[in-house]
Formats: sequence, C-alpha cells, structure tokens
Amino acid sequence: MLKLHDLSLSGNCYKVRLFLALLGIECEFIAVDFMAGQHKTPEYLALNPRGEIPILQDEDFTLCDSQAILVYLASKYASEAWLPQDAVGLGQVMQWLSTAANEIARGPNDARLAKKFGYKLDLATAQKKAHHILPIVDQHLSQQNWLTLGRPTIADIACFPYIALAPEGEVMLEEYGAINQWIDRIKQLPNFVGMPGIDAA
Amino acid sequence: MLKLHDLSLSGNCYKVRLFLALLGIECEFIAVDFMAGQHKTPEYLALNPRGEIPILQDEDFTLCDSQAILVYLASKYASEAWLPQDAVGLGQVMQWLSTAANEIARGPNDARLAKKFGYKLDLATAQKKAHHILPIVDQHLSQQNWLTLGRPTIADIACFPYIALAPEGEVMLEEYGAINQWIDRIKQLPNFVGMPGIDAA
Repeated sequence: MLKLHDLSLSGNCYKVRLFLALLGIECEFIAVDFMAGQHKTPEYLALNPRGEIPILQDEDFTLCDSQAILVYLASKYASEAWLPQDAVGLGQVMQWLSTAANEIARGPNDARLAKKFGYKLDLATAQKKAHHILPIVDQHLSQQNWLTLGRPTIADIACFPYIALAPEGEVMLEEYGAINQWIDRIKQLPNFVGMPGIDAA
Repeated sequence: MLKLHDLSLSGNCYKVRLFLALLGIECEFIAVDFMAGQHKTPEYLALNPRGEIPILQDEDFTLCDSQAILVYLASKYASEAWLPQDAVGLGQVMQWLSTAANEIARGPNDARLAKKFGYKLDLATAQKKAHHILPIVDQHLSQQNWLTLGRPTIADIACFPYIALAPEGEVMLEEYGAINQWIDRIKQLPNFVGMPGIDAA
C-alpha cells in the first residue's frame, strides 16, 4: 500500500491527500511530528535529505515534493484526464504547477506561515504578493471553470489548497468572485475531502 | 519558428536557451528590455499576466515559466532521454524541477538577485539557504554523474544555471567538489552554450 508521511495542517501534504481521495486510492498516512522536528531526524533525512514533507513511499520507490508526487500519482494511477501526455497539455498543466510553487507559495502560503505559524517571513510582502497573483488567477477563472484544459487536472489540485487557505494569512478572498466559484466547484468533485481550514461543501 | 522572449542575464531564460542549443533547435530570441519594464507592458502582460519571462511562442501556442517550457520542449521536440514518460522517471525528474523552483530559487538565485542586482531580499538568509541545499546536491552528485536516471535530463538543465551562477551571489562553490565536476560535465555536452557568468568549457 502507498504510504504518505504527512502533516494534517500542511497544505502541501493536503494536495496529495486530496488527490488520493479523488482517485479513490488507499494510502497509509503516517503523521510526522513536525513540531518536534521529526522530519529533520536521520531517519527522515534518509528519505528526503531536504528535510521536507510530504514524502510518498510506493513500495521501494520514494518521492518528495507535493507537485512531483501529484505528477507521479497522476501518471501511474490516474487517467490522462488529470495529466495529459501531449506536449501542449503537459506544458499547460506544468505552468500552473509552477505557479503553485512560485507565486502562490511566495504569496498566500508565506502569508499563512507568517500569520498562523509565526515563521520569520515578512507578512506585508507576502500579502502584497498574494494580491498580485490572486487577481490574475481570478481573471483567468472568470473565463473558464478550471485552470487549464477545460477540466479538473492536477493544476487545480496543486493551486487550490493555499488559495483556499489564504484567509489564514489575512488574505481575504471576498473580492475574487471567480476564485470563490472555483473553490466551490472543487469542493463538489466526487470524494472531495477537506482539511483544517477547508471545510467540505 | 520558435520565439523566445528573453533576457541574456536571466538564468531562467538561459535554461531554455541552453536546452534549445543542446537539441539543435532554431529559435528567434527577442530581447526584452527588462530594465525599462517591458515585461510589464500591456503587450507583454497579454502574453503572460504574471509579468515574468521567459515566454515561449510556438506558432499560436504561448507558454510561460522556465520549468514548464523545458517540459514542453522535451515532450514535443526531444527524445524520452530528456524527459521520460513513465511514472517513476517522470516523478524523479519532476522532483528536481521542484528543487530548482524551491530550494535553488530561494538560495543561490535569491542571493544573486540581492548581491548582483540589488533586489530587496535578505542576502544572508539566501546565502544560508544556498549552503543548505548545495551540500545536499553535492552529496547526491558524489554518487552519480547526473541528478537522476543516470543520464542528462531536463532536471540537470533546470538546476544548473543558478548553481553555476552562485558565486555572483557570493555563494562560493570551492567546497562542493561533486558539483564542480557536474558543472564541467554539463559544459562538455555537445552544443553547450554559456551565458554571462557561465563560460563554455
């Protein structure tokens, strides 16, 4: 069975939990004692020298990084609906995975880390970056239901958690109507699961 | 013909230029006047609302983000040697693309932006992050010639520029023997091209 080294409050871990749930794939979730620094112990550094979670184990294959895990799971266990193999489709999904890793990570994600968890990050800068990328995403979603390809893909799964959790970094979403509709649309996907801060519909 | 909206000093643009050179693909390079903010003009925001470069145009298809462009070019124009389609290989390459977008971007890349270009980023923090990820990469490369799959892939192309440019952020590489050998190995690839700060071998 798949094993995920996991933290309930992590939006990156939640990306993986959500996608597994949507695919109906069983997985053993192993809670990492993040506060005690368990992810920095020799045992965990052997799994991921970067000292980060989530970490997926699929038999003897180990993979780190939420975006890479989404790509792996889609490629191995899902249909091409979630991650196409053609260059144009793959490139478009990849562009949004990068938006999750760059603009969304440095915006709403960093704001939440600073506000909710006391990370030494500049809250105002992160909030400003959040309000730079969110109107771009909102404008984009005002013209289509999903981030790319006209259907839910791992692009949506990668970008959803830290956008939906933005209010925890005092980045309010009221003004972003198309984003709110997209959040509701994701919550309507069969087998959707929430996390602390993201209620199921 | 392909068109790349490009900046000679950008390591992200260079990733694309280098990969195109290695593949022997012709491309029209369109220099963006970055200092004048040309990438933030309405014309450019129509191509990429995020206001970033590089931007690739392949006939009527437009794609942003250096990592996404590498994936697209590999998928459309290269053999699977550069980007495999199987889940394990794809996941492993993707993990290193994420390392480029996360640890390398926040480490040596941010240090260079602060030191060389005066970006308002904390130089000491970026240098510290650089010296967190570089020993991990060095240890990894002490056991293998390439980042993954035992051959050059777009993982190497994505991680190479900002590691090789690290000294421009006063992140010195002398102590990282395996990284230096890997840099030399990349420079030996047929059709390798450099950029300001990265000499051809």
